[in-house]
Amino acid sequence: MATQADITAMRRAIALAARGLGFTSPNPVVGCVVTDASGHPVGEGWHQRAGGPHAEVHALAAAGSAARGGTAYVTLEPCNHTGRTGPCAQALIEAGIARVVYAVGDPNREATGGADTLRAAGTEVGQGLLEDEAEAGNLAWLTAVRHGRPFVRWKYAATLDGRIAAADGSSRWITSAASRAEVHRLRAEADAVVVGGGTLRADDPHLAVRGIEGAAQPLRVALDTRAGVLPTARILDDAAPTLLVVGEDADTRHLPGVELLRLPLRDGRIGVDELLSGLYARGVRSVLLEGGPTLAGSFVAAGAVDQVVGYLAPVLLGAGPAALADAGINTITRALRLDVTDTARVGSDLRITAVPTASAVPTPKGA
Amino acid sequence: MATQADITAMRRAIALAARGLGFTSPNPVVGCVVTDASGHPVGEGWHQRAGGPHAEVHALAAAGSAARGGTAYVTLEPCNHTGRTGPCAQALIEAGIARVVYAVGDPNREATGGADTLRAAGTEVGQGLLEDEAEAGNLAWLTAVRHGRPFVRWKYAATLDGRIAAADGSSRWITSAASRAEVHRLRAEADAVVVGGGTLRADDPHLAVRGIEGAAQPLRVALDTRAGVLPTARILDDAAPTLLVVGEDADTRHLPGVELLRLPLRDGRIGVDELLSGLYARGVRSVLLEGGPTLAGSFVAAGAVDQVVGYLAPVLLGAGPAALADAGINTITRALRLDVTDTARVGSDLRITAVPTASAVPTPKGA
Repeated sequence: MATQADITAMRRAIALAARGLGFTSPNPVVGCVVTDASGHPVGEGWHQRAGGPHAEVHALAAAGSAARGGTAYVTLEPCNHTGRTGPCAQALIEAGIARVVYAVGDPNREATGGADTLRAAGTEVGQGLLEDEAEAGNLAWLTAVRHGRPFVRWKYAATLDGRIAAADGSSRWITSAASRAEVHRLRAEADAVVVGGGTLRADDPHLAVRGIEGAAQPLRVALDTRAGVLPTARILDDAAPTLLVVGEDADTRHLPGVELLRLPLRDGRIGVDELLSGLYARGVRSVLLEGGPTLAGSFVAAGAVDQVVGYLAPVLLGAGPAALADAGINTITRALRLDVTDTARVGSDLRITAVPTASAVPTPKGA
Repeated sequence: MATQADITAMRRAIALAARGLGFTSPNPVVGCVVTDASGHPVGEGWHQRAGGPHAEVHALAAAGSAARGGTAYVTLEPCNHTGRTGPCAQALIEAGIARVVYAVGDPNREATGGADTLRAAGTEVGQGLLEDEAEAGNLAWLTAVRHGRPFVRWKYAATLDGRIAAADGSSRWITSAASRAEVHRLRAEADAVVVGGGTLRADDPHLAVRGIEGAAQPLRVALDTRAGVLPTARILDDAAPTLLVVGEDADTRHLPGVELLRLPLRDGRIGVDELLSGLYARGVRSVLLEGGPTLAGSFVAAGAVDQVVGYLAPVLLGAGPAALADAGINTITRALRLDVTDTARVGSDLRITAVPTASAVPTPKGA
């Protein structure tokens, strides 16, 4: 039975973990709270960046000798392997922690086993406290590890009647300033932001994070099969790293110094699976899909949308392009069905967050 | 200063008023609570149907002599004129009511003046308690009286990407059973349900209220410029009254006994203003617009949508007709901007209620 103190400590650990969003890939975000033998919090920490100390190490360092006989609350099962840092299970044992409570088991095969190591050393181990909340906090990383490709969040902004622009192409501004500001937060949380060639040509997007102090800049990824982008495109400035994804035969001589990912074309297009594999290999665990309707359609058709975040503006147009096109769905029984996980008012807009239903696409438990 | 007892009584009166929705046109819905001299509720009532006693009369009858020296809480200013029933202001005076508190002033010129009559008789009069709530409860009637045409609520059901059907036309069922059931409540609240010729031909809709015991059946209104509907159409059954709106020269010999409204055609179409005027003249104060995208577009273009109720299903299609078309809006600066007044989960769907912003179309205060 979890006590109220257990719940409070784990909730704090989950909040701490969230501070790492955007900085830890290819690692998960992790938070840790250490209490002393009488249950008082004496240390806390979170995994701040890939290559840096794990959450448990930060929390144990803060607790010092007060950790002896105490409890460690960790959002994810403590690791058991020696990666760039030593195994956390061993660190907890050495600090004399009597009890470890973790929310989510580590799905990463290489790292699993921390709980067993702790038990073998006589440490009491509890699992599952606030599991759903902790899962949600690590949704991107858990999804990526389970599927072996980056977690994909598709963000769109549309009118109530589903238009992303008016008939003449004008779209500034459909959504409110508050929604547009929030998109920068979504970018900062993601490892990569992806747009397609249509958006690249039509909008000359910048895609860097603005207005959030200390934010991580995502990798800006543009699909550009023929490498038609001009060297002066905004996406190629130095505000954030950029990866241009081109067809394997594309002529890129006008783009010296631009980082390229060359992929084979299928029917003249870059395949979603190949793209995601290429990004995963570079350590990308979460993608914010900001492309237009066609790119979004190809992701939906590939079953590669893990979460939808729609900003609906209370606006009616009656004409103009739709938010999603060419998803390969012709009849209602083949529609992609979702579960709404959250709704919120953002400025004058409505934000809807949804995930594919379990029967539609495999999604992580608790998502 | 309103006391908590005042607020409680008025809130009860507003709840009572709502019981009349769908039954009172061309009158408003009204609720009334009467308390005795010491503030205890001794009678309540609501306007149950056009031609029947007003709310105050019901409440005073229930209170009997206990009303003497008491307070009457009424959602709308008591009437001062002798219509089909006697003036309520006089009835309140004769019952010895010492104080009348009403929420919303009567915008109907013919009926205004009840407050003055009460004051002249020495009754204490207070106005404005829970005015916004009471306005919302009488939104349709107040809007109709202020604009001189029926209040128009446009209801649509679409996917998150704004589609009302798949590419092959299939649409059963986009929204959940809970949303579909709620539409019957919207029909029961409306005086008339309106569809266009496209929906009439494609869907053979029935439009009557089902599944709500004691519900008022709305007038079913179908636009059918050439009177092409078959006598066997479901809308022509006897489950509810029906009005077929046809062009002035339409041949209707195959439709004996069908109630007709003949209107001049403009560019081969029935004008929204003429339609609404014709319905208003028949006592219709509220319209539920259930037509397809083209009819909705013509209402938006005419500035004749007072409220939008959208049922958004967490479904993605990527192809298929949009919820709204041909609204005469070509560029973003001419978009119809709305204010979201309510959002709710209905089954697995999301219901969004919105009204045109004050700058877009004149809307009643507090709407």
